[in-house]
Amino acid sequence: MIEARICIVGLGLMGGSLAQALRGQTLATIGVDAHAATRQQALADGTVDFATDDMATGVSTADLVILATPVHSILDALALLPQIRPAGCMVLDFGSTKQAINAAMSALPETFSAIGGHPMCGKETAGYQSADARLFEGQTFVLTRNERTTTAVEAQVLNLLDQLGAQPLFLEAAQHDELVAAVSHLPYLLAAMLMRQAASRNDEKVWQISASGFRDTSRLAGSDPRMMLDILLTNKTAVLAELATYRNTLDQLVALLHEGDEQALVTWLAEAQQGHVAYRRHKDSPTP
Amino acid sequence: MIEARICIVGLGLMGGSLAQALRGQTLATIGVDAHAATRQQALADGTVDFATDDMATGVSTADLVILATPVHSILDALALLPQIRPAGCMVLDFGSTKQAINAAMSALPETFSAIGGHPMCGKETAGYQSADARLFEGQTFVLTRNERTTTAVEAQVLNLLDQLGAQPLFLEAAQHDELVAAVSHLPYLLAAMLMRQAASRNDEKVWQISASGFRDTSRLAGSDPRMMLDILLTNKTAVLAELATYRNTLDQLVALLHEGDEQALVTWLAEAQQGHVAYRRHKDSPTP
Repeated sequence: MIEARICIVGLGLMGGSLAQALRGQTLATIGVDAHAATRQQALADGTVDFATDDMATGVSTADLVILATPVHSILDALALLPQIRPAGCMVLDFGSTKQAINAAMSALPETFSAIGGHPMCGKETAGYQSADARLFEGQTFVLTRNERTTTAVEAQVLNLLDQLGAQPLFLEAAQHDELVAAVSHLPYLLAAMLMRQAASRNDEKVWQISASGFRDTSRLAGSDPRMMLDILLTNKTAVLAELATYRNTLDQLVALLHEGDEQALVTWLAEAQQGHVAYRRHKDSPTP
Repeated sequence: MIEARICIVGLGLMGGSLAQALRGQTLATIGVDAHAATRQQALADGTVDFATDDMATGVSTADLVILATPVHSILDALALLPQIRPAGCMVLDFGSTKQAINAAMSALPETFSAIGGHPMCGKETAGYQSADARLFEGQTFVLTRNERTTTAVEAQVLNLLDQLGAQPLFLEAAQHDELVAAVSHLPYLLAAMLMRQAASRNDEKVWQISASGFRDTSRLAGSDPRMMLDILLTNKTAVLAELATYRNTLDQLVALLHEGDEQALVTWLAEAQQGHVAYRRHKDSPTP
């Protein structure tokens, strides 16, 4: 049970899943969403107690405001909060990059206590209709402290993660952004490039001949472009660094293939397989 | 029912799945495999009627020989067949690239009738223990004709695909190799590069923070390096062409990110998403 009135701003995949996971576990859940159909559905299925398209109304009586929109909108909301909620409250966000958001949280008046969050889970489909109350279960949830982080907001949010079944992982915002560039933003861009290249053939046979390997490698290309734009622009330095390293790896691979040195090539491929083994080992028995 | 004695050379993922799918549907199934444990298991579970590590013995009484080993071993086997099976027989292979194999099939004596095959399915785990009798069900199975292809072998193999529930797709060998470079070999190399880059951080946090997007995009990195080496070396021209195009796309993306032109970037990302939509549309209702 969360002894708080919670206002969730954005009832998309993340906010909707959160609201569903907390059903009946809060003093009240208030949903803020621009789409009338989403508000109606969340009210109709009992996921929220109150729904509005006006953020000022939504946050007015909340103890904890959770911002679950794309990064750019989270930054807009943080800029607005001091005016629309002058008494202050607790704030958590679900943004995919953390440095810009943490700076904005640190700039909030001292009446606010705030902590950055990023649930390490998702789907390539967006929106309330894709929401899933068990989305966060067993998943890593990154928390990033800033100058407005208090023990009170930390305790409240850890209690919330406990309700969701998520595993908290405290990281510096810069460290988070660098790691997600490697394991989230780079994979997205590779998938997008792969999909553009296959689609540019304009040949149905390319789909016909494609199997599960292509399906999985290209899956992230289906992500929402606006959401991904926000992520890339607020994590540009780390993403460009990952792409530069990737380009070097690509050049190295092309040289190996041109030379046709079988031993060097098979070693290179085996190192990738060993990486996969190490990764699977971690996922099968995570470090505590 | 297949009115033939079938010899399957290689009881790995592909050959093992084939043998299991055909259980009780042939006049006899003979398995050839170098591993004693695999032969014993396939005999014990009733998947094959006879098992040997000697290809000459295995093919001696077979009407149809199916070569289900890595490409290099298929080429070795095709070179050997005229000596060990002088009377000739029908031949099908399951190799991942088709031009070198089709040339070798065309060079067989006229006592042989042969057709190239490539089931467009798989797993990143190899071996008989990963075999699955339903692996081919509903999947595309490419067939490539060569100078030894007769109506008889074509009919026999189409009957076999019917038993497996696979969908035949006739392609020229060169066309096949170009298409799989785009939807199979390129995705594998992207996954391998991604995995090498993530693993090179030597930081358990990189695994801890990774979610389903990384899991799927990097999955193919777990593929067997020896098998992939064969594939890359027998499809070098097409693979290098795909990598060159990919490198251009990467340079284009890096330039867009550097410039930070939001409209151009979001258009670029949206085109990738549209490609994904077209792909999913095809897979959800395939062209007949």
